[in-house]
Amino acid sequence: MPLSSRHEVTVEWGDCDPAGIVYYPSYFRWCDQASHRLFVAAGVAHNETRGGQWTEGTPLVAAECSFKRASQPGEKLVVESHVSRFGRSSFTISHVFRDAAGEIAAQGSETRIWAKKEGNARSLTAVALPADVRKRLGG
Amino acid sequence: MPLSSRHEVTVEWGDCDPAGIVYYPSYFRWCDQASHRLFVAAGVAHNETRGGQWTEGTPLVAAECSFKRASQPGEKLVVESHVSRFGRSSFTISHVFRDAAGEIAAQGSETRIWAKKEGNARSLTAVALPADVRKRLGG
Amino acid sequence: MPLSSRHEVTVEWGDCDPAGIVYYPSYFRWCDQASHRLFVAAGVAHNETRGGQWTEGTPLVAAECSFKRASQPGEKLVVESHVSRFGRSSFTISHVFRDAAGEIAAQGSETRIWAKKEGNARSLTAVALPADVRKRLGG
Amino acid sequence: MPLSSRHEVTVEWGDCDPAGIVYYPSYFRWCDQASHRLFVAAGVAHNETRGGQWTEGTPLVAAECSFKRASQPGEKLVVESHVSRFGRSSFTISHVFRDAAGEIAAQGSETRIWAKKEGNARSLTAVALPADVRKRLGG
Repeated sequence: MPLSSRHEVTVEWGDCDPAGIVYYPSYFRWCDQASHRLFVAAGVAHNETRGGQWTEGTPLVAAECSFKRASQPGEKLVVESHVSRFGRSSFTISHVFRDAAGEIAAQGSETRIWAKKEGNARSLTAVALPADVRKRLGG
Repeated sequence: MPLSSRHEVTVEWGDCDPAGIVYYPSYFRWCDQASHRLFVAAGVAHNETRGGQWTEGTPLVAAECSFKRASQPGEKLVVESHVSRFGRSSFTISHVFRDAAGEIAAQGSETRIWAKKEGNARSLTAVALPADVRKRLGG
Repeated sequence: MPLSSRHEVTVEWGDCDPAGIVYYPSYFRWCDQASHRLFVAAGVAHNETRGGQWTEGTPLVAAECSFKRASQPGEKLVVESHVSRFGRSSFTISHVFRDAAGEIAAQGSETRIWAKKEGNARSLTAVALPADVRKRLGG
Repeated sequence: MPLSSRHEVTVEWGDCDPAGIVYYPSYFRWCDQASHRLFVAAGVAHNETRGGQWTEGTPLVAAECSFKRASQPGEKLVVESHVSRFGRSSFTISHVFRDAAGEIAAQGSETRIWAKKEGNARSLTAVALPADVRKRLGG
């Protein structure tokens, strides 16, 4: 059974736009937060920082999200996340957002790579996902 | 030839994260800004507000972005946007981000619907894209 | 004894900047969230929305914050908030942020007015703070 | 005559909240951007990055802002910034936001220190503002 993690977010006033509903980039902030929690749950990131094995930040290749139901300030959403695809270096984390009624509010995914820093942040190099990291992530 | 618009964004310090590069949800903020500029260029949104024909906010069905090159504070990116698909009510806006060297930094798309508000923001109803709006958007 | 509320925030990766510490506008987002929680605790705002008596949004006159200790991703901060000054229409909410060691990380305040909407958001008019609202807020 | 810089910001849809006006932490993002532009104008920060003499990020001691007129999506604001106070290590940057009619929409200030990094971001140490930096900033 794949490792998964659950992360609750409260839709804050400042996460919403003049339409009175979530400003959509907020969902991607929550996806990023949920991925970090999944990494912590898997023991491949430290709780306190993004240090540990996830030193380099696992940069994103792509991200996408589908929006099913608009949410409003004060709502609580539960994000459930797991790694849904393992490549050689890249892997995909799937996120499902459910509202208080259990309805899917949004669902998205992030494709990230395992990377090694060689100098500054622009020179991250994709490396093979270490076997133990893959195992910890449920692969 | 389809209508397109160009929008320059400066990568600000606060758009970046501790890795020293753009925090990826920032690209979606820029996509949203670029879509608004496309609507203004097409004459279907007012410059000053999101009023006009785009009264209801053209809610999102989905959004995605691929990240090619990490950008850093101080960089200027040009976003070029056009409607790449017209459905009955939905349509897709494609965005290409290029850095100062003309290299693609990121490319994404937003699928939005033409909607009519019936009460509050949660009760937006998809309606057929009006013929004149489609024409103005290059369809 | 004045009413106070406590709100825990987790410093997220995306709340920080390339210096690796909290990007300072994030503290103001947290102050705004903390004020809303104080209003909910006082029973003058609904939990689900910013509706209720706080219909109009209690617009800000001023906000300020002093930063004592830089916080990093993964840290948990507790924000303690109470109304520290009552005017005729305006009032000041004080916020103290403490880190896990109990040290003050930041402290700030927001001065807001009680307002009545007369048309759009630009035409909010200051009105006297209702006696029951003042009482509920500990004044 | 003190050095000053002018920075135009467009109030974006995503900078606003469900009240339809600027979400107030956005003003602080704009203050931070304006300070960076002042530093670039003074020649104490590089255009491309926050490197140069401003290597360490000139951490904030305090920030405050007063809000005079609510702004809405699509408005353009001009921020005018200058150093209004020089201390030994700290200095204050004042920012005035004016709308298209020239009216003051907001005015704020940031107090920052000149710092030297000694290890990580939490161990920044205040140092005396170098004489040439002070001179370049108009002091």
